[in-house]
Amino acid sequence: MAQNTVEKTPVTLLGLGVMGTALARTWLAAGHPLTVWNRTPARATPLAAEGARVADTAAEAVAANALVVVCLLDDTSVDKVLAGTDLTDKDVVNLTTSTPAQARARAEWARQRGARYLDGGIMAVPPMIGVPEAGGYVFYSGSPELFERHQQTLAVPAGTTYVGENAGFAALHDVALLSAMYGMFAGSAHAFALIRNEDIDPEALAPLLADWLVAMAPAVHQTAEQLRSGDYTKGVVSNLAMQVAGTPTFLSTAEQQGVSPELLSPYFELMRRRLAEGSGEEDLTGVIDLLVH
Amino acid sequence: MAQNTVEKTPVTLLGLGVMGTALARTWLAAGHPLTVWNRTPARATPLAAEGARVADTAAEAVAANALVVVCLLDDTSVDKVLAGTDLTDKDVVNLTTSTPAQARARAEWARQRGARYLDGGIMAVPPMIGVPEAGGYVFYSGSPELFERHQQTLAVPAGTTYVGENAGFAALHDVALLSAMYGMFAGSAHAFALIRNEDIDPEALAPLLADWLVAMAPAVHQTAEQLRSGDYTKGVVSNLAMQVAGTPTFLSTAEQQGVSPELLSPYFELMRRRLAEGSGEEDLTGVIDLLVH
Ligand SMILES: NC(=O)c1ccc[n+]([C@@H]2O[C@H](COP(=O)([O-])OP(=O)(O)OC[C@H]3O[C@@H](n4cnc5c(N)ncnc54)[C@H](OP(=O)(O)O)[C@@H]3O)[C@@H](O)[C@H]2O)c1
Ligand SMILES: NC(=O)c1ccc[n+]([C@@H]2O[C@H](COP(=O)([O-])OP(=O)(O)OC[C@H]3O[C@@H](n4cnc5c(N)ncnc54)[C@H](OP(=O)(O)O)[C@@H]3O)[C@@H](O)[C@H]2O)c1
Repeated sequence: MAQNTVEKTPVTLLGLGVMGTALARTWLAAGHPLTVWNRTPARATPLAAEGARVADTAAEAVAANALVVVCLLDDTSVDKVLAGTDLTDKDVVNLTTSTPAQARARAEWARQRGARYLDGGIMAVPPMIGVPEAGGYVFYSGSPELFERHQQTLAVPAGTTYVGENAGFAALHDVALLSAMYGMFAGSAHAFALIRNEDIDPEALAPLLADWLVAMAPAVHQTAEQLRSGDYTKGVVSNLAMQVAGTPTFLSTAEQQGVSPELLSPYFELMRRRLAEGSGEEDLTGVIDLLVH
Repeated sequence: MAQNTVEKTPVTLLGLGVMGTALARTWLAAGHPLTVWNRTPARATPLAAEGARVADTAAEAVAANALVVVCLLDDTSVDKVLAGTDLTDKDVVNLTTSTPAQARARAEWARQRGARYLDGGIMAVPPMIGVPEAGGYVFYSGSPELFERHQQTLAVPAGTTYVGENAGFAALHDVALLSAMYGMFAGSAHAFALIRNEDIDPEALAPLLADWLVAMAPAVHQTAEQLRSGDYTKGVVSNLAMQVAGTPTFLSTAEQQGVSPELLSPYFELMRRRLAEGSGEEDLTGVIDLLVH
């Protein structure tokens, strides 16, 4: 059936949820022979019409191709689905969200079954898959050979960023970035709450807020430099003592506006604790050390 | 002494801390006649050499010019410094950080003394003052006439953004944006903490983190639209139910990495509370309503 002048790597995909279906469509559109399987068979029907081969069992799908991509709900479902399959000599790429420990354990589990293993953390939502200009990408970690061999195929649905041989690192990077994003969302929620009962249009605040966050995001470069050098005073503009002195304004404003300080206080509390350790001349970086046991 | 072809508005500046000194230099450099006063006189000496007139008392400085800019530590110091001055018919621009309530009270206080009043919230650190490409600016609120009359002079040290007649709005915008920034810093601190004991270079994480935060910051536009319309399901991609289902991965990862969840949990807790109210189909926006009493 090789109708393409350039042979495209055949792909097996287990899991046709919202994300799996989005991935599947990009491989089909790019001309990769695709074998799919999903627990609820109905979800495969539209893909069959688009050219996918639908396997009756996960074992049959795995047997079909060397490259096996897994995109299921969680690590428990991966365990269930792969249990009855023969992974000998397979290239397993697991895009199911997991913790770093789950990913490392899954890599070892795959190795014991004779498979190579690459773990992925998807930094995109389904509408960004197959849309390069949307900027979505996937962190990969684990077997470097497997990454190199399949990078072109993996690049079809989204960008690829390899972050190391430790299979847990893709998940760790994924969780780190999303955790930071939730912090930003928490801060934005507090900002919107402050103006909720005022005659201020949230759509007028939004561009100011977005521009400010974009302007301040690069502060992480200085944090990283300080963490690497161990000198948390390097390049400081507003030191910890000044910033702690400013916190009552934030808390009083919240109180005046009838807004709970619960999303701000924990960070301010860590700033105060670090200051109490005699670190007033430092940047905010020392807070990070207070978080790590 | 009008040596300039275009007459520049003379400025009185009270307060020569780090910020006041930075402001002073930009007006001197732009050719504005400048009268300064500072509690500790020594801080005025270098500016005198650069062409500033140094007043012996705050009252004398206020008497010198119609436009009086104040940049002191806090609202209490403003109270002390302006106490013995005659503000009749003065254009007072107060750039001292204050809460919205302090700013509104200060506007009323100034009105009773026969002055016009504009409050400012500085969205810049001193090294950004007089450096337009650094993007720093000042929120202004209060008398629209005063803002219009002096906008050109006020634009010398930094950009100007007028946010309304309510004198408290500059402070409110200032605090809202900085609160959001602290949320982003808290999230970034958690992210760096997660990799602290791993063989991952923080300077390799930083660009990924910065790019991700920059890519996600525009999410505030959708939040604002939802707040305005009251429909928190509009445009949702990952709904609240899905996002709450994902939180255990973040908390387990923190635990595995030996990182305290204290900066993430409060937001997740609010997400859970909102979900429990039956809002699983919504975006994260409902969290904002839980914050406001
Ligand atoms: N959607 C996103 O925005 C997004 C973003 C980044 C990462 N991810 C990750 O991508 C993965 C898939 O997400 P999704 O959005 O596609 O989720 P989804 O729409 O809920 O689909 C879940 C998939 O897992 C299958 N599944 C669940 N439990 C199973 C079990 N016990 N045995 C066999 N199959 C099982 C489902 O099969 P049935 O059809 O039979 O239920 C379905 O194929 C998740 O790990 C998610 O965290 C998603
Ligand atoms: N620096 C920044 O990054 C930054 C950014 C945005 C906004 N701001 C705001 O700008 C304002 C000034 O900040 P700054 O950085 O210039 O602070 P600073 O360097 O600490 O200077 C404080 C100024 O206030 C004066 N002062 C304090 N208490 C006084 C009192 N009781 N009576 C008379 N004068 C008093 C000080 O006079 P002495 O010289 O006699 O002590 C000095 O002129 C603050 O409201 C600050 O929040 C600063």
